Amino acid sequence: MRSVLERMIEGLNAGDVQKVVALYADDATIEDPVGGGMVVRGRDAITAFYDKAVAMRAHIELVAPIRASHGNAAAMAFDVLADTPDGGIRIAVIEVIELDDALKIRAMRAYWAPDDVSPAAGNAPH
Amino acid sequence: MRSVLERMIEGLNAGDVQKVVALYADDATIEDPVGGGMVVRGRDAITAFYDKAVAMRAHIELVAPIRASHGNAAAMAFDVLADTPDGGIRIAVIEVIELDDALKIRAMRAYWAPDDVSPAAGNAPH
Repeated sequence: MRSVLERMIEGLNAGDVQKVVALYADDATIEDPVGGGMVVRGRDAITAFYDKAVAMRAHIELVAPIRASHGNAAAMAFDVLADTPDGGIRIAVIEVIELDDALKIRAMRAYWAPDDVSPAAGNAPH
Repeated sequence: MRSVLERMIEGLNAGDVQKVVALYADDATIEDPVGGGMVVRGRDAITAFYDKAVAMRAHIELVAPIRASHGNAAAMAFDVLADTPDGGIRIAVIEVIELDDALKIRAMRAYWAPDDVSPAAGNAPH
């Protein structure tokens, strides 16, 4: 379970959308942010989601070791740095994934609020 | 939302079970660990859960700032130190809470796996 999140970080930080999308089940869902009122569902939408993240040069920095669970889930706390038209931003996030029996992600939820977002000096590293 | 988790930490670290239990709705649930096969439900069971934690002198150390959400949820990454018959242990946890409209916790889920547990030298601080 932990390695799924490790590969997600590696893929995103390398700008490799296909590597990240391959971690998801075909009918998976992404709720990012939780409570934002929008759920991304299915491979095409998930690909578009990560295409956009890579276009913003999103870069994940873990702030604590990844946690697993006794079941089919794992969670991690990280900061994500990204480019925006106004400069860089940093978002403090906790992300939880649920896996299916094939160890593909069936649901990802990212917890962050407007005040978890702060300006980040300079461009996100990549 | 963030302050609910702050009060949970304060209450637990002070050994004040009632302060922690008061954060929960009457019919709330706790799944700790996620996937462990047991869900604690209702005020009496939640009180017993925290009585046990306080008896082990459980002490929370945040490892990153608390995250909120755009909805009714919040999450935090922490280490919990506790006394055991064999000495101290440290468990690396991510905890997610969902709140009801009265800002009471209706569900708490704690993500940690057996290999998120390590020995901790000496007793947990209190």
